[in-house]
Amino acid sequence: MKSSFGQSVNICITGESHGEALVAVLSGLTPGIKIDREYIRHCLSQRAPVGNISTPRHEADEFEILSGVFEGMSTGTPITILIRNTNTKSKDYSEMAVTPRPGHADFTAEAKYHGFQDYRGGGHFSGRITASLVAAGAIARLALKNKGIEIGTHISKCGGVADREFQNVSEDIKSLENKYFAVLDDESSQKMQERILEASQQGDSVGGILETAVCGLPAGLGEPWFDSMESVLSHMLFSIPGVKGVEFGAGFSVADMRGSEVNGSLCVNNGKITPVNDLSGGVNGGITNGDALKFRLAVRPTPTIFKEQNTVDMKKLENKTLSAKGRHDPAIVHRVRAVVDAATALVLCDMMAQRFGTDWAL
Amino acid sequence: MKSSFGQSVNICITGESHGEALVAVLSGLTPGIKIDREYIRHCLSQRAPVGNISTPRHEADEFEILSGVFEGMSTGTPITILIRNTNTKSKDYSEMAVTPRPGHADFTAEAKYHGFQDYRGGGHFSGRITASLVAAGAIARLALKNKGIEIGTHISKCGGVADREFQNVSEDIKSLENKYFAVLDDESSQKMQERILEASQQGDSVGGILETAVCGLPAGLGEPWFDSMESVLSHMLFSIPGVKGVEFGAGFSVADMRGSEVNGSLCVNNGKITPVNDLSGGVNGGITNGDALKFRLAVRPTPTIFKEQNTVDMKKLENKTLSAKGRHDPAIVHRVRAVVDAATALVLCDMMAQRFGTDWAL
Amino acid sequence: MKSSFGQSVNICITGESHGEALVAVLSGLTPGIKIDREYIRHCLSQRAPVGNISTPRHEADEFEILSGVFEGMSTGTPITILIRNTNTKSKDYSEMAVTPRPGHADFTAEAKYHGFQDYRGGGHFSGRITASLVAAGAIARLALKNKGIEIGTHISKCGGVADREFQNVSEDIKSLENKYFAVLDDESSQKMQERILEASQQGDSVGGILETAVCGLPAGLGEPWFDSMESVLSHMLFSIPGVKGVEFGAGFSVADMRGSEVNGSLCVNNGKITPVNDLSGGVNGGITNGDALKFRLAVRPTPTIFKEQNTVDMKKLENKTLSAKGRHDPAIVHRVRAVVDAATALVLCDMMAQRFGTDWAL
Amino acid sequence: MKSSFGQSVNICITGESHGEALVAVLSGLTPGIKIDREYIRHCLSQRAPVGNISTPRHEADEFEILSGVFEGMSTGTPITILIRNTNTKSKDYSEMAVTPRPGHADFTAEAKYHGFQDYRGGGHFSGRITASLVAAGAIARLALKNKGIEIGTHISKCGGVADREFQNVSEDIKSLENKYFAVLDDESSQKMQERILEASQQGDSVGGILETAVCGLPAGLGEPWFDSMESVLSHMLFSIPGVKGVEFGAGFSVADMRGSEVNGSLCVNNGKITPVNDLSGGVNGGITNGDALKFRLAVRPTPTIFKEQNTVDMKKLENKTLSAKGRHDPAIVHRVRAVVDAATALVLCDMMAQRFGTDWAL
Repeated sequence: MKSSFGQSVNICITGESHGEALVAVLSGLTPGIKIDREYIRHCLSQRAPVGNISTPRHEADEFEILSGVFEGMSTGTPITILIRNTNTKSKDYSEMAVTPRPGHADFTAEAKYHGFQDYRGGGHFSGRITASLVAAGAIARLALKNKGIEIGTHISKCGGVADREFQNVSEDIKSLENKYFAVLDDESSQKMQERILEASQQGDSVGGILETAVCGLPAGLGEPWFDSMESVLSHMLFSIPGVKGVEFGAGFSVADMRGSEVNGSLCVNNGKITPVNDLSGGVNGGITNGDALKFRLAVRPTPTIFKEQNTVDMKKLENKTLSAKGRHDPAIVHRVRAVVDAATALVLCDMMAQRFGTDWAL
Repeated sequence: MKSSFGQSVNICITGESHGEALVAVLSGLTPGIKIDREYIRHCLSQRAPVGNISTPRHEADEFEILSGVFEGMSTGTPITILIRNTNTKSKDYSEMAVTPRPGHADFTAEAKYHGFQDYRGGGHFSGRITASLVAAGAIARLALKNKGIEIGTHISKCGGVADREFQNVSEDIKSLENKYFAVLDDESSQKMQERILEASQQGDSVGGILETAVCGLPAGLGEPWFDSMESVLSHMLFSIPGVKGVEFGAGFSVADMRGSEVNGSLCVNNGKITPVNDLSGGVNGGITNGDALKFRLAVRPTPTIFKEQNTVDMKKLENKTLSAKGRHDPAIVHRVRAVVDAATALVLCDMMAQRFGTDWAL
Repeated sequence: MKSSFGQSVNICITGESHGEALVAVLSGLTPGIKIDREYIRHCLSQRAPVGNISTPRHEADEFEILSGVFEGMSTGTPITILIRNTNTKSKDYSEMAVTPRPGHADFTAEAKYHGFQDYRGGGHFSGRITASLVAAGAIARLALKNKGIEIGTHISKCGGVADREFQNVSEDIKSLENKYFAVLDDESSQKMQERILEASQQGDSVGGILETAVCGLPAGLGEPWFDSMESVLSHMLFSIPGVKGVEFGAGFSVADMRGSEVNGSLCVNNGKITPVNDLSGGVNGGITNGDALKFRLAVRPTPTIFKEQNTVDMKKLENKTLSAKGRHDPAIVHRVRAVVDAATALVLCDMMAQRFGTDWAL
Repeated sequence: MKSSFGQSVNICITGESHGEALVAVLSGLTPGIKIDREYIRHCLSQRAPVGNISTPRHEADEFEILSGVFEGMSTGTPITILIRNTNTKSKDYSEMAVTPRPGHADFTAEAKYHGFQDYRGGGHFSGRITASLVAAGAIARLALKNKGIEIGTHISKCGGVADREFQNVSEDIKSLENKYFAVLDDESSQKMQERILEASQQGDSVGGILETAVCGLPAGLGEPWFDSMESVLSHMLFSIPGVKGVEFGAGFSVADMRGSEVNGSLCVNNGKITPVNDLSGGVNGGITNGDALKFRLAVRPTPTIFKEQNTVDMKKLENKTLSAKGRHDPAIVHRVRAVVDAATALVLCDMMAQRFGTDWAL
């Protein structure tokens, strides 16, 4: 199958956790976007592991742009980004060739690829692959910034600790730009990191919830039915390893609400029709309404844990136990945040290009 | 944009709430599937409005199969299904040409289509269009049944009342086959209907949560990254009007769990590797693991309510109020259930065909 | 597989020669196009069989627009066109269930669909299906006319007789608008029709070449590599039954030419860069250059002939002979012309929408 | 737009003539294909310039496989191929930033990309990019060989000299495997090369015709209408720079033939239905008939010539003349041959996977 996503603006990612390199191809981006390498580095750094709450595997994430950029600007033709893997310790994984980690793709990869998959460190299924996605997404974000569109994601919940909600969306997004552990409330931030560390010390892992907001989107993006904004965004978001839920606006809490509460109202504001208190997350009938786009993601606890688990030997077809070795994250939610920002940007560029044509960001 | 979805098996739907007819085109289905018209009618009846908890608009939903079926069997070429609209009262909607219902697609359709959209009854955005999707999905379900794959959806929550969870998935699915208000626990069923009626009497509406299970799927369906089972399913599910959240397995509750709780284990069962207590909903790394597929959807309260709401006159650009007229549902969650079963079947047929080729169901 | 084509503007066609009806779905067309039903009828009449040089099967081709048009204008949502089959004589084809016509799809349909295909009159493979394509294409042409883009096709060669070449492209296109046997030179027209009649009287059929020109296209349409204008157009054109060759500009004759002859030159004309004597058919590097788009198609002689042919009995796996019965065309090239105009229009609408956004024709 | 092609097996190519590197991503290939690097090198060498009939720019075409191959076998996940550009002399092209070569993409790239395109050596439009396509195609050919499917292309015509036609297709394909100037008849080969040299000495270029045959394909590949074998193949083939015509079987010569001549017949051969003397090139109704697949391509004379040509200054909007500098091919037809083999293999892998599922080549 295609390893790519998007109609007019398309992203393709390749590579394995312990392979030679990661590659992203970003196709269909408007020509004339200034490629700010510092910004790409900044976005990559938000995905990089930090301190003792992440894997001790540190990758430089030095990227090389192989095509699609000329004299510092996007040409309009495919942009290729190469990130070499440098810090791989594949011997750690040799047992995993036959011993799938419960909850991980090890067994399903075997079911699909008949043992030919690269099993080292999760191979092509590893979150490592998202580094190239983040680099491509950073470029997409630069294009969106040209049109005043900004994206921000915070950790809404982690290890049982909740962050405050978005208040002034535009300012909150700005404040997140320079945070590596993206929590709006600093006290919650501290507590969450403690919980991660706690789980880590017990050889376990924790999950969390991310919440994303986008300002500056015009009304009228998306299609009825199969290319609704929610459909296309969720398609992309569920591609991110570990995401087990996506909800827009009030999401699952609508189950306990009345129509009169969820609907909000419409009013004329400075000659422009504007939704007020609409809890649908900025999308009605699959199409943006001009309000801030808002959605939340559930991120599962990392499946690779050091605690002993029951699993099988896939060759001998016998039961056995496994205590993971190698270097692993006790939580990924704070790193996934950078991936969500990138993934969202890629989808929105595509939606803009489909609606306004290939020169939309010029 | 394309009004269709799917790679190898593809569904296209067209029509408007108050237009001439609804059409579904189901392409790429294996030849040789026996087309049981009674079963299609049965599936359509599960989507039809019932009693006083649904819209008083009753459509016969008589369908005609215009192509793709020969001597009672699918030919392998596109199947076209036609359902005429017969019971339309368009005068009820004349005010809505300029007065968008808050929370509905009326305003976003205007933003996208510049006033050329068919505004009657929500036009192409209406849930009415799902009738043809349900008919096509019924055929897809017949193909899946050939391979022992069964789908069932129950109302997990509605109006604040919860149903019991799936227990014996296979038997629960069977028990749902003949229910029109798909609740596993009969007492909860009664209470939910009371809550809907209550909201209806107050001119308001309620939302709910649907839970779906699929038995009999082989391990190895879906792709890493952009065509993960979760990605493709959620893409389809968020196309259904009113869906605001999708979660797989433990979904959003993973935020408060540890890896050791979510992972479950793998064991050898009758010589087959089998997941046990895996809370990921039957999908690891985007690929089915052979366990029952399980997901939940949040369905918003119907946006069209009779209570007075604040909105605008889109022509005069003035604020005004609106009390909806016409015939509307105080809840749609019990009707969406049939749409979810159909939508799921369409995606799964596509996944099977991509994996095993176009003759997969023969 | 998908029975549709196109990214932003998409066409889906369904039906069988002797089935209930033909359906076309045209998705993604700009809202606000005036739907001139008389023009659709006109285009359909150019595809209809005429006199003694076509099949005696006459279909009224009455079409019904089931969706996507409101108050006489396109809404922007999918347009569904229904054409019922009325004049079917299926008993003529009963022998063909097991006796494939050489050169036709009868045998390949069996190889693909295992005997479940509708074999009557070629079933889904019949040229009959193009009626709905022509109706949809007529609407696409109306959209293009809004932007001054005009398409015309003439029979460049048939039965060994050649037409004159395009001279003043714009005027020639206009002169073709009202011709049913689309030949620029009237004397050639007469001779071609004589040759068709001659073949018909001998129970045989003749082929031909169609040449198409498009005026008014802007420079800059199409993509490098896989979505080049030639790639996308040829994809569509080879979908038309009987087409065995497609060439752009000088086409196959470039084999005997020098670069200096094919290249032509560029010059500034009224402040605009303009190609002069460029023999590449209006496309360089896959992208339109602002010159008239020009291409030619080879159309095979109808495979169904009355002469005796050697074939097989597919059930008994024995050799046998076949003399076709039923009603058939001794030539289709003059009817395919309307299909080519339609198919071209559909591709160009898509190319315009991809380049300039979904409102391109407003 | 997507820089990729294919549904189940997909190829993406990126890079520029004078950029850092070329990258190809081959997605969806069956796991378990032995990756023979020697064979990839062999295929690349057939595309490399030779002697005095090609550009003096020589590239080592050293390739690196960055992903998708593990322990020498394809994993089933995306294969990434990197080829660095090493021999670039970009100063030769500085004038071309404003001076488009007639017949080339220089002007159309400007029309599409507003001056942001990499103009050096044709940038992303350069035939140089096909090196990565050939490498990916070599892998696709290895997969096809697993199923006994072989592809061969010869120069049917060049500089007015014709090669003999395919006779014993299977043996002819074998004999082409080791030819760098792929002509079946050695005398014709000599003459063609003389003609190329002659044109070269006059600062001009020549075109040609390539003919391809494929043995071993099963009947039943391809779809009716929009995904016909001819549609999909021509889409790919017209992506190759310089291709201006594609024809299947008798192609354009059908215009002068009768149905009884083109049809051939069907007969039972060793219990298998087999087409005999069918001139449709192995495809009826868009679907393969089990006969050898045969098609021909027109390749234009290279547009870049040293003769003086009339063109414009795109900045000043003035007429001027141009005599190309740099290193260019006086003919590309003999090098395009390797690209056609590769492109064909990629399409056929996709067609096999769509029909028989993702494990088709195991």
